[in-house]
Formats: sequence, structure tokens, C-alpha cells
Amino acid sequence: MDYAKESLRLHKEWKGKIQVVANVPVETKDDLSLAYTPGVAQPCLEIQKDIEKSYELTRRWNMCLVVTDGSAVLGLGDIGPEAGMPVMEGKCVLFKAFGDVDAFPLCIKSKDVDEIVNTIYMISGSFGGVNLEDISAPRCFEIERKLKEKCDIPIFHDDQHGTAVITLAGLNNAMKLVKKEKSQVKIVMNGAGAAAISIAKLLLKAGYKNITLCDRHGAIYEGRADGMNPVKNEMSKITNLEKKAGSLAETLAGADVFIGVSAPKMVTKEMVESMAKDAVIFACANPVPEIYPDEAKEGGAKVVATGRSDFPNQINNVLAFPGIFRGAFDVRAKDINDEMKIAAANALADLITDEELSPDYIIPKAFDKRVGPAVAKAVAEAARKTGVARL
Amino acid sequence: MDYAKESLRLHKEWKGKIQVVANVPVETKDDLSLAYTPGVAQPCLEIQKDIEKSYELTRRWNMCLVVTDGSAVLGLGDIGPEAGMPVMEGKCVLFKAFGDVDAFPLCIKSKDVDEIVNTIYMISGSFGGVNLEDISAPRCFEIERKLKEKCDIPIFHDDQHGTAVITLAGLNNAMKLVKKEKSQVKIVMNGAGAAAISIAKLLLKAGYKNITLCDRHGAIYEGRADGMNPVKNEMSKITNLEKKAGSLAETLAGADVFIGVSAPKMVTKEMVESMAKDAVIFACANPVPEIYPDEAKEGGAKVVATGRSDFPNQINNVLAFPGIFRGAFDVRAKDINDEMKIAAANALADLITDEELSPDYIIPKAFDKRVGPAVAKAVAEAARKTGVARL
Repeated sequence: MDYAKESLRLHKEWKGKIQVVANVPVETKDDLSLAYTPGVAQPCLEIQKDIEKSYELTRRWNMCLVVTDGSAVLGLGDIGPEAGMPVMEGKCVLFKAFGDVDAFPLCIKSKDVDEIVNTIYMISGSFGGVNLEDISAPRCFEIERKLKEKCDIPIFHDDQHGTAVITLAGLNNAMKLVKKEKSQVKIVMNGAGAAAISIAKLLLKAGYKNITLCDRHGAIYEGRADGMNPVKNEMSKITNLEKKAGSLAETLAGADVFIGVSAPKMVTKEMVESMAKDAVIFACANPVPEIYPDEAKEGGAKVVATGRSDFPNQINNVLAFPGIFRGAFDVRAKDINDEMKIAAANALADLITDEELSPDYIIPKAFDKRVGPAVAKAVAEAARKTGVARL
Repeated sequence: MDYAKESLRLHKEWKGKIQVVANVPVETKDDLSLAYTPGVAQPCLEIQKDIEKSYELTRRWNMCLVVTDGSAVLGLGDIGPEAGMPVMEGKCVLFKAFGDVDAFPLCIKSKDVDEIVNTIYMISGSFGGVNLEDISAPRCFEIERKLKEKCDIPIFHDDQHGTAVITLAGLNNAMKLVKKEKSQVKIVMNGAGAAAISIAKLLLKAGYKNITLCDRHGAIYEGRADGMNPVKNEMSKITNLEKKAGSLAETLAGADVFIGVSAPKMVTKEMVESMAKDAVIFACANPVPEIYPDEAKEGGAKVVATGRSDFPNQINNVLAFPGIFRGAFDVRAKDINDEMKIAAANALADLITDEELSPDYIIPKAFDKRVGPAVAKAVAEAARKTGVARL
């Protein structure tokens, strides 16, 4: 199917992928008097007395803001706020279908960090949580950090953390399969954007110890002269502990795991051949991966995952964000912290039994009905354990 | 029924009066690829080339923002943004039920005019129009004016203009009934808040000429010393043309029409007796009107309207805003101007035939199915005539 052409045709037919509908009857005078004036004054007064009641008397308990500035939409770059809307609406559809979360899309007409933060903060009292989407790095880090400081509801940048959760889930299962210890394996990543940074941080938090990030200048190490920035400097202190310089190819030699969130065809069969036995390859560049699964297998890789739905082991964010927000909302969490993300990853990985586990099945499938509830349950429990749950 | 108690019980049961639902199927891999990546890139690129396409490829064409700062919610005053939400959700329910408009509620955490304006402007690209709600005067005037300057979508403060439209509709029919000419009648209004100012302005625009506004200091006239403000100064130049001072009671003597948007029991039977023959009384204070219909009739009033659903002739905004936005959205209007408001009022008034017209039936009823479509049609036509329609 020509997805581009057919999708455009359908978008014209759909005229919007979401609707706002009423949850209550409006057929009689009494209906009006109860859902609206004069009756509605009473729930208003209850919330005035105790703002927490906004979670019981309005839709806030289940309402997620999906928000972008249009600066990094899909792989299209900065296409502007209005043009980002079809993606945001699509995300809201997925929130509802996979997590029964009400999600509403907004596109902000600004690229200024503080204007974006302030706009979202101003309307945050109407939502139970905020999903940041398709905001370019490094602005996305600062926007997320400032919002987390200002708001008492979960702030989650899915491009970073959703991807990190699925990657961790898949990697945990891949380690089982190749019988290697997470504390021992050498991981090389290519890409130093928002997703890569977030993946590296979550892997470290989850017990992986030996990670080296590469960018177009090769391995990132503390004190490197070229192409550094504040985020890379920060990462250089907690990764590549031997401070080794070298190209991606040089760095990959002997590594157990490659994780690419970079660009098409960065990795060759020969480079895979140089890796340790039973290499694990996550080639997530989309639509053309860093290396195609066939070629990676020819080079000796045991497990290959990609971002594509037409190969096995798809790193697909839809496995994470709906369940993560469902779980956070179920316990009225005030944050989505690392423990909740790791719990989500473990729940995902554990859906595949040891008997089922195979090189072509390390990550549950997008339409596996068990995924949303399992992730939600684990996330809610982790929220309670870490003291961020309000229920 | 105890509306307060029952409404609170229902709000707990409802857990929110709106939901965001998907308009598209998400059951197969292909569904995902068309509603989301990779297919969704194509509609994004179309909007990037031409922002107007956001009205064809997303829900923008039908999406209205319902927004407050919680500063003047119902008659409850400044109860804060979160506490305003039950009213905003109720409004969204009415938008959908009576106008098939998707409406989404937001409460802004600020009382600062420029912060409110900027927040709404920043997200305006996601909406087809903005309905301002329950914002206190005189800030609401400035907020509306600044937003109209900055945005290319309709900005409508329903508390002002919705009320004005219904009042004009009712008054036109009342004039038919008492056989008086709108250019000749003497109108006295009590109240100088947002609704009163807007009613006075729309009546003047629609051909009524002799209006005097009163506040707690009595008649407002040009050059009055006490209790003036910029808005009252502006109104004093276009009302009370004879610059007469006097109490409300003194001003009412000989008047043909009284319109109250003020406080309970401001008008007595004796004051009505002092008015001209076949007096028309719109006593809109809620829930206790300026004078009850029975008493006004005893004083000689021919026609009485109130804001209450349990008396005849209810001035009910639900008659106007859903159809007004429906009409504006149908022609992708960039503004809702006075001509569109007057057209809405005339369409409303004309739904009652000369044979049906009676002192107890000058305004259509809230559940009259003809109202929404009739108002929408008239508003769309007026938008086209005045050059603000983009379709």
C-alpha cells in the first residue's frame, strides 16, 4: 500500500481523527439544570474548597495533554505547529485505543523554551498529565526539566522516555536469550539526540554499566574537543568510562550490543562481524535502519530489533506510553519517575515467557491486549512504592 | 429537585462530562500506519505547505476552545481556574448537543490580561475559534480586544455577546407585540457589567436609539463624577443622550423597556407602574430576578422575560452560542462580528410567527430543534456578506 497517498486520502475523509463528545444526557430541562446551571455551582464550590476534587468532579483524572511546538515532527524536522497536528491527533487516538486515556492535542506557536513552558504551565490545571511530543533537542530537555519543577502532574517526553522503556524491555529479553549479564555487556550506541540520551540514562539506571555513545565524530569521551554540547559533556562523565576515542567501527569491535537511533546504513556486515559472539543489534533509524536484519544476521548477530512493523521485534512506543499514563492516572501520580519507567520495561519484557522467547520475539507485539494493563499495573505499583502516588 | 445536591452526586458518578474519542479505526497494523506513522507524514507536509489545510486534515474546522481564568464563574465570583472546570465542561457539552461543535475546556492559571492573551494566542492554531467564558469585567473587554487583534479565528465572549443576542431577539419580538418602533422606545438598563455593556452596544447597532444605563449611583451620563471607569465613560457618550441624572426609579419613569442584568429585587411594582403603557421588562438577574414576573404584570408590564427556565421567555444563552459557532465554522469565518450577532438575533426572533407571538412566547425554547440550524444559517450568510468567511 502507498501509505502516504492513502493516508492523505483518509485524512481528507476523516476531517480530524478525534472528537470531543458528551458523557452526560442533555435532553430535558432537568438535564441542563444538573450538567449546567444552576446545579453545576455545587461541584465548582467543592473544587474551590479542595483542588484535589478536580480529579473527582471533572475529567481531569483521565485527561492527558499531547503537546508539541512542531519543531521535530517525525523525521520531517521543524514543520511548524499547525503541521504537527495530524501526528498529535494520531497520538491521542493511540492513547485512547491502547490506554483508555482521554488525550487532547495542542500545538504551540513558539520555539522559545520559556514561552512553551509558561503556556503549558498555565493550562496544566486542566489536565492529569502532559505528554511532550516531537520537540527538538536540546530544547526538549530544558522544557521537560522546567515543567517538572513547576507542575505537580506527570510530565513525560515520549520521544525520549517511551523509546527508552521499549529498548530496555527488549534488551533485558535479549540478554536472557544470549545468556549475558547486563552488568558485564559492552554497549555501543550511535546517535546523541534526545532518544539516545534517554536510552543511555535509563539503561544505566537499570543496571547496565558499560555504554559508549558515538556521534558523527566517533566515540564521545570526557574532554573530547569536537562537536560537544552540555548534554554530551554530561553523558561523557557517566559513559565510556575508559575514555577511549575512535570511530563507530573501531568502537564497535568486541561490543556485545549495538543500539542505533541515528541514520540509515551506518553499520556494515563487517562491523557486526567485529562484535562479540551473539551480538545484539537494535537498529532503530526509520524507515531505513542502521543495518537491515538480514545483513546483521549474516554478520553473526543473534538478535535484531528495528523501528519497523514489517520486521520482527519492533521498538514501538505504543507499547509504553498508553500503559504508563494509564498506570500514572490510576494512582493520580504527580510524576513519572525512572522507577516507573523501569517497572514498565520489566512488565513488558515479562509478558514473554522463557519458552516463548526467541531471537524473533523479544518484544511483545503492538496489538497484544495484555500490554496496556500489564504496564499500567507495574507503573502504578512503582508510583506507590516511590511515593509519587496520591491514591 | 435539590439541584445542588443532585448535581454534585451526578458529577461524582460522571467523573467528567466530556470525553475525547477516536474518529478512526485502530485495529490492524495498516490502521496504525495510516492514522499514525509512516502515513501521517503526508498530511503534515500538506499543512506545512498551506496552513489553511489544517482545517481539512485535522479537527480544527470544528474545534472550539472554551476558556476561563475562573475569575467570574456563574455568580460565584473568583473561585480559581480548577474550580471553573465543571462549568467549562458543561459548556462543551452544550456546544456538542446544540451545535455539533467539538469544544474543549481549559482553565488558565493567571489573572493577568497579557498572560491570558498570550496563552490563548499560543494555542490558537489548534482551534477554529475561541469562546471566552466567565472572565471578570473590565478585564474581559481587554482580553477579547487583544485576542481579536492577534488571532485570525473568531473570539467570542459568550457572557457578553450571547446574552446580547438573545436579548435583542426577545426585544425585537416584544416590540412587535406592543407595536412600538425600536428607534422610538426609551430603554433603561440596570447594571454596567460585561453583559450590560454588550447588550447596550448591540441594541444601538441594531437600531435602538434611546438607552440609559444605570448603576448603583443611578443613571450614567457624560461627565458624572462618581463611580465611573473607562468603559462607563465610553458608554456615556453613546447613551443617555439628554445627559439626565437620577436614580433608577427616577430614570425608569416613562420608559418603555427595562433590562436588568444586575441584582435581585432592584425594581418594584410601583416603578413598573411609573413606566409607559405596555412596558417590557427583561429581569435577568439569576436566580432571583430584579422583579418577579407576577409583580411586574401587576404593575402593568405587558411582556416579562427572565433568566430562569421556570418562567416564560427565558433569556438562555444556549439559544445562541452553539448556532453562532456552527455558522461561523461552516464558512470558516475569521471573526464573529456585530452583523453576525444581529443576524443570529433576527433568525431567533423570526422562528416565532406573528400568530404564535404572545406575551409569554417572545423567545424560542431551549429545546426547539429549529434554533441551532436557523441561527447557524443566518450567521454563515452574514459572515459571507461582511467578508469574514473563508469558504
